[in-house]
Amino acid sequence: MTTITRADCEARDRADPLASFRERFALPEGIVYLDGNSLGALPKAAALRVKHAVEREWGADLIKSWNVHRWIDLPQRAGAKIARLVGAKASEVIVADSTSVNLFKMLAAALRMRPGRRVILSEPGNFPTDLYVAQGLIEMLGDRPGGKLELKLVPGEQIVGALDDAALGADVAVVSLTHVNYKSGRIHDMAAVTAKAHAAGALMLWDLAHSAGALPVDLGAAKADFAVGCGYKYLNGGPGAPAFLFVAERHQAAIRPPLAGWMGHAHPFTFDVGYEPAPGIARNLCGTPPVLSMSALDAALDVMLEADMGALRAKSLALGDLFLALVEQRCAAHGFRNGSAARHERGSQVGLLHPEGYAIMQALIARGVIGDFRAPDMLRFGFAPLYNRYAEVWDAVDALASVMDTRAWDTPQFKARAAVT
Amino acid sequence: MTTITRADCEARDRADPLASFRERFALPEGIVYLDGNSLGALPKAAALRVKHAVEREWGADLIKSWNVHRWIDLPQRAGAKIARLVGAKASEVIVADSTSVNLFKMLAAALRMRPGRRVILSEPGNFPTDLYVAQGLIEMLGDRPGGKLELKLVPGEQIVGALDDAALGADVAVVSLTHVNYKSGRIHDMAAVTAKAHAAGALMLWDLAHSAGALPVDLGAAKADFAVGCGYKYLNGGPGAPAFLFVAERHQAAIRPPLAGWMGHAHPFTFDVGYEPAPGIARNLCGTPPVLSMSALDAALDVMLEADMGALRAKSLALGDLFLALVEQRCAAHGFRNGSAARHERGSQVGLLHPEGYAIMQALIARGVIGDFRAPDMLRFGFAPLYNRYAEVWDAVDALASVMDTRAWDTPQFKARAAVT
Repeated sequence: MTTITRADCEARDRADPLASFRERFALPEGIVYLDGNSLGALPKAAALRVKHAVEREWGADLIKSWNVHRWIDLPQRAGAKIARLVGAKASEVIVADSTSVNLFKMLAAALRMRPGRRVILSEPGNFPTDLYVAQGLIEMLGDRPGGKLELKLVPGEQIVGALDDAALGADVAVVSLTHVNYKSGRIHDMAAVTAKAHAAGALMLWDLAHSAGALPVDLGAAKADFAVGCGYKYLNGGPGAPAFLFVAERHQAAIRPPLAGWMGHAHPFTFDVGYEPAPGIARNLCGTPPVLSMSALDAALDVMLEADMGALRAKSLALGDLFLALVEQRCAAHGFRNGSAARHERGSQVGLLHPEGYAIMQALIARGVIGDFRAPDMLRFGFAPLYNRYAEVWDAVDALASVMDTRAWDTPQFKARAAVT
Repeated sequence: MTTITRADCEARDRADPLASFRERFALPEGIVYLDGNSLGALPKAAALRVKHAVEREWGADLIKSWNVHRWIDLPQRAGAKIARLVGAKASEVIVADSTSVNLFKMLAAALRMRPGRRVILSEPGNFPTDLYVAQGLIEMLGDRPGGKLELKLVPGEQIVGALDDAALGADVAVVSLTHVNYKSGRIHDMAAVTAKAHAAGALMLWDLAHSAGALPVDLGAAKADFAVGCGYKYLNGGPGAPAFLFVAERHQAAIRPPLAGWMGHAHPFTFDVGYEPAPGIARNLCGTPPVLSMSALDAALDVMLEADMGALRAKSLALGDLFLALVEQRCAAHGFRNGSAARHERGSQVGLLHPEGYAIMQALIARGVIGDFRAPDMLRFGFAPLYNRYAEVWDAVDALASVMDTRAWDTPQFKARAAVT
């Protein structure tokens, strides 16, 4: 393999059909940001939109903005934009609350729709909050006539086999999985797993936290029942941006929201004493949405929708390939193992495993290369094809090679764990 | 009674010890805003803080802001500020989610702590979402060994008597009331009702949506068990600002959160498979908070905390008294009835009842006086003593008198109901 130079990477940037998106983001100088899978960068349009929402909508138009600036259907309008990214109908997605709260709603809906079954099936490597929410729900609901509710965890690659098990399969109410694993970046085969869940009589809930905006998703083609996802990772909606949820049209009327709030009422402004769920997806709203945060997300979505998802996926994989090739070229002697998923099932991130991963990541961050660390030993690098450049990947691995060559990580301050990582 | 002139009102503004707060808010020219009980006005400090949160925290410092700008404990820090306004300890209040979602958490906690009881007691005039959330929770939980869960509604003035009823009282798990009624503005006697609930063996949950920041509240002295409240009314936190919740210290360890998310975990960054609730109030967090919206609230709280709550309450009552006196002086012939609570139990709002209330309010809004309408016949005017002026009250009633004298309300466009009011 010929040696890759920075000039090669610059040439790829010049030929990149997505290159112009970079300037739509306000990225700090001197930083290589490879953590868009944790918090997406700031779209300039989002900053302008928040300024408008604060000064004009809140400050000047005040309460009239519910009508004038359409705060009232912002959850639907933003949801319809996300629907285009995940293969759903506009009427199947809505923006609301947090991913965790939406998981609660969707798991509760699924359990209600499968009253004779008592198992939520997931994997131990699922994102922790997905498991916590299931645990909290089960503890709240207590036992069922059919037996004790249970969160059953089997390794991801054994999920399909577990559903084939006749006794277990018949007990599963809902399969709850994250489409792209937060740590390994491995993609589940959405259509195949969903089909298997359905064959067992179970419902399928997908967490799209690391998928939406990062790779093509087709909830409709996969016949998914429910989905949730995050607004602040690849969708660039800002810190703690509201999350979204998807309910397939065929299930929407069956949902009796456990979180029954005024925004999900059929007539939110008539102040009825009795709860009557809104038709369609809107019943999954609960309280008043955080308009400033949701406005940032709504503006960020417009930027992403200008890009072609096929081009995004191709560049995402190319950035990851380049990263891994450069690590092999520059860091072969330093004991990294590849913790990434195989290319054909890899999301928009790669992972390197190293016993000193924590300290190495701190040393990298000190040099302006921002990835993150996931215990016990993974350095995680996310690629946001809207704004990351090939030359940045070169710079990131250059910094990594320098950190390793000089053992810059081997200092007390980089080895000391911060409270928040 | 001598006639009140605008000059009298201007003199009162000059003597107002809170007058200087007005310029801390970005209020539009030519508008009299008497709807701060629905959406508080924009504090200039909140606009600056949001700009900082967007450009510096999100845009420049990106993921590091969890540490550098302390996003991680923003819910606690903002909660501690609210605690000072509601007579709670800093460790008893946290900012999270929406009021509706927090109601769900607190009602669920209360039902869990009173397993032998099956009634949530409230009043039909409670804010609708408070009732909806109870209905959704009950429908989700289904029956209990002791019988069917039930939301029992008795008129507010009969709550104390209902708790005296031995059979009913013994069945009540939690009394759920809004401290200041959203429509009449009537204040419940927090200490007396709480004591009565406790005497019956029930827990007490207060919704402070129309109290926090509007009048003195002392949850501690009243021995309240749980409370929730809204960030975007008198606290001026911005549209859909996150809400808050209060759990008395003595109950905190007993709570098993039904909404069990990563932010409420004892070790949120260790990515454990099992949920372990954080000690204290933090377990009532669920997912990632909307940082931009929460930052606005946090900055708004600093402004309010500079004011003396006794002075705020005195001015609030004085503004309402002035309004009612001017209505009597200027509009006596126009058939308004006083829909406000008696002065000694009046929150920071007044209500006028009129069969043409909807059209009258539209005509007022067209003249720049913003109140709101609550079906079937109430014109509602809220007073935010931080920024409303006595002269504005004069101008509001002057506009009302003009609307009535000229029958300006009696046109098709003002009589036609908008979808959102």
